[in-house]
Amino acid sequence: MNSQNPNNRTKGESSKAIYDRACKVLAGGVSRNTIFRKPHPYYVARANGSYITDIDGTEYIDFANNMGSLIHGHSHPAIVDAVIQQLMKGSAYTMGTEAEVAFAELLVGRCHAFEKIRFVNSGTEAVMAMIKASRAYIGKPKIAKSEGSYHGTYDYAEISQTANPGNWGDLDKPNAVPLVKGTPQGVIDDVVIFPFNDIERTLNILDRNADQIACVLIDPIPHRVGLFPATKEFVEAVHKWTRKNNAILAFDEVISFRVNYAGAQESYTVHPDLTAMGKIIGGGFPIGALTGKSEIMQVLDPREKNLRYPHSGTFSANPISTTAGRVALELYDKKAVFDLNALTMIAKHQIEESIRIADVPVSITGDGSMFRMHFQAKAPTTYREAYQTKETKDLLNELLDYLFLKENIIMINTCSCMFATTHTQKEVDRLSEALLNGFKLIKPKLDQLV
Amino acid sequence: MNSQNPNNRTKGESSKAIYDRACKVLAGGVSRNTIFRKPHPYYVARANGSYITDIDGTEYIDFANNMGSLIHGHSHPAIVDAVIQQLMKGSAYTMGTEAEVAFAELLVGRCHAFEKIRFVNSGTEAVMAMIKASRAYIGKPKIAKSEGSYHGTYDYAEISQTANPGNWGDLDKPNAVPLVKGTPQGVIDDVVIFPFNDIERTLNILDRNADQIACVLIDPIPHRVGLFPATKEFVEAVHKWTRKNNAILAFDEVISFRVNYAGAQESYTVHPDLTAMGKIIGGGFPIGALTGKSEIMQVLDPREKNLRYPHSGTFSANPISTTAGRVALELYDKKAVFDLNALTMIAKHQIEESIRIADVPVSITGDGSMFRMHFQAKAPTTYREAYQTKETKDLLNELLDYLFLKENIIMINTCSCMFATTHTQKEVDRLSEALLNGFKLIKPKLDQLV
Repeated sequence: MNSQNPNNRTKGESSKAIYDRACKVLAGGVSRNTIFRKPHPYYVARANGSYITDIDGTEYIDFANNMGSLIHGHSHPAIVDAVIQQLMKGSAYTMGTEAEVAFAELLVGRCHAFEKIRFVNSGTEAVMAMIKASRAYIGKPKIAKSEGSYHGTYDYAEISQTANPGNWGDLDKPNAVPLVKGTPQGVIDDVVIFPFNDIERTLNILDRNADQIACVLIDPIPHRVGLFPATKEFVEAVHKWTRKNNAILAFDEVISFRVNYAGAQESYTVHPDLTAMGKIIGGGFPIGALTGKSEIMQVLDPREKNLRYPHSGTFSANPISTTAGRVALELYDKKAVFDLNALTMIAKHQIEESIRIADVPVSITGDGSMFRMHFQAKAPTTYREAYQTKETKDLLNELLDYLFLKENIIMINTCSCMFATTHTQKEVDRLSEALLNGFKLIKPKLDQLV
Repeated sequence: MNSQNPNNRTKGESSKAIYDRACKVLAGGVSRNTIFRKPHPYYVARANGSYITDIDGTEYIDFANNMGSLIHGHSHPAIVDAVIQQLMKGSAYTMGTEAEVAFAELLVGRCHAFEKIRFVNSGTEAVMAMIKASRAYIGKPKIAKSEGSYHGTYDYAEISQTANPGNWGDLDKPNAVPLVKGTPQGVIDDVVIFPFNDIERTLNILDRNADQIACVLIDPIPHRVGLFPATKEFVEAVHKWTRKNNAILAFDEVISFRVNYAGAQESYTVHPDLTAMGKIIGGGFPIGALTGKSEIMQVLDPREKNLRYPHSGTFSANPISTTAGRVALELYDKKAVFDLNALTMIAKHQIEESIRIADVPVSITGDGSMFRMHFQAKAPTTYREAYQTKETKDLLNELLDYLFLKENIIMINTCSCMFATTHTQKEVDRLSEALLNGFKLIKPKLDQLV
């Protein structure tokens, strides 16, 4: 609960000074909107395990883990050692490395649906490659995606990512709402929007575009929709539809891969044709990956006489990212996944207890090692239910600010946590205690909101 | 000239074994088509400065430098040291770092046209962001790009990248030729193709689409077009056209930034509104950057009430890439740029001497620290002149294979070299000598070709 720190600098003082410099050279003073906070972002001096120390010396417990990308927290010694070994030998070449092959072998060995892989540099690039591979294989132009889901910054993938009551339209036929000003009409026309987990409406919508859809894109636990899993029935129904209508079932597991040894897809009876990954598979370094059925992945094969999808990338499959990723996933074995999910479950139970004691209308969604809090007594089950008004968002930011500034706890700006194997019961106790304090603080406003 | 090596393993023996494993898990056995070679790619054990040692122990001189991205060669000690220091403190956070600000300050200080910056993870992401920012600012849907130019893997940017005589159409109105099978018609319709350096035709083509064009995308020294610089007159004419027609002049300097202290744009009297960068600015690590006028970059500013271009990225501006990039560019000061360009000029002169001695119809194009060889006595000045038939490509690959397998020299697969500050007269002598041998070897076929 300190706003002072060992250096006797006021919390945020040096961060404000850096941000003033940043505003002169970076658009809005940031290079990622996710790190922006009012009145200014905070800057990191060093981080270890689950702890981050800012440049004024304040130490925070980190439950954001760089938007869920650090499954072993910060500067894990085994990853640091392996990266240093590779650094001495170079970071990138116009030739191959055994590191990319060994990492691909590990991933293919981990999940039934991963037959062939191609590495890229980010989740954005992975989803873009997945959509392009689908079109190249199927030969139809459209993609279908769920309202509210985030899939990176490729135009097609970001349609309706922030659809709101003023523009989302009829649930039977949701509008395709562009995210970025100036998005070409051709993009908007080629994206079909369906309501996540709503089987009947989704099948009707897909049917109306059946002859045009190359792939149906699904994040099995979509963070921005509300962080609740796709139901088995929904995934099975969409899978069946894609079989019948010559379309690819494409999973975006950039975030969700962490929830099981073989990703969220392990929970379903049917498998996607293609999967995009990113985040944790880089071990803290930039990466993305497209994987799936050999027959489809062959569109990328440079040995083909008529190469359908020529594709390369200067930094793709670089030995730093593939080495760090391999070490991270070797450490993230079945036992580590089980233990992490179990600790996260304990955290959720303790937070539910905090919610009960504070007597606030808050619910929790999530799966595996991640969860999200909602300012509604009953957990939302659709994007439109989970959608937050400006008043709700303001109050949510008040809670996040309290946690960050007074409790020294970092969460993701949707009020979500993505756990790491470096968390222990100690950090869980601090989290549920801090949330109890926070809930009590905002309770009067929260009760008015509902 | 050895095909043996100190380990007494046949050259390529272990690489073949790794590739056999790779084919089981990677599409076509590679994650980047640029490293693919028949019958199999070669795999790196370690690299230092301008030398790469493959896993069988053969040492090569590297003139490719990971497709021109390593301006100081491999594992430069100052970059390695700085990265290790940062590694110990973490590789990525959901908070800011002073590293991103310091690097942005360096870049802004280097070039007049760089007012504000946003970092991304690759050149592909930088060009995509540049096109999206242009549309968001201007509010028109189309982009114009030159036939044959490579700008990464965003659909719009790769139209007509490999246009050929069978599909490129009339030079007065070149066809928009999709690269990837299944490219939506909406993408093809929104890209206007012009012939690089052809002022009259380009202006006519732009005029016909004036009310639709958000940006004119120019690589000032386009590698795949032929690696000859845009003329001053061409850049000035296009700049003037964009002023008159409310469009962005967008430079892709992902490759060309290396040729001058402030990029290739330093050579022109007019400046681009936006610039995309990548390659050398990462110091060997994944990076991209969008930069340009504050007023335009403001479309990305999260403080804006109506944010026109919401944009983020998990690994964007990570402190490893921004630290490595800053150190690399600090070392690449005006003197280093001058010296590197001077050494490259010597290399070109020596190779011209090899061409003369071998009496082969070969010409050289390029600028600064990069050049490309063409199997034509007179250097090409247009994409269509530089376009290679299958026979030419086969012979070019024969030369590249000879250089790689017999002379232990690595070049880029277009028969190009991108120099690094670690090269010396010794490596230049080996290069011109090896090329002399190679030219003599292929002379009979080369003479028949022309």
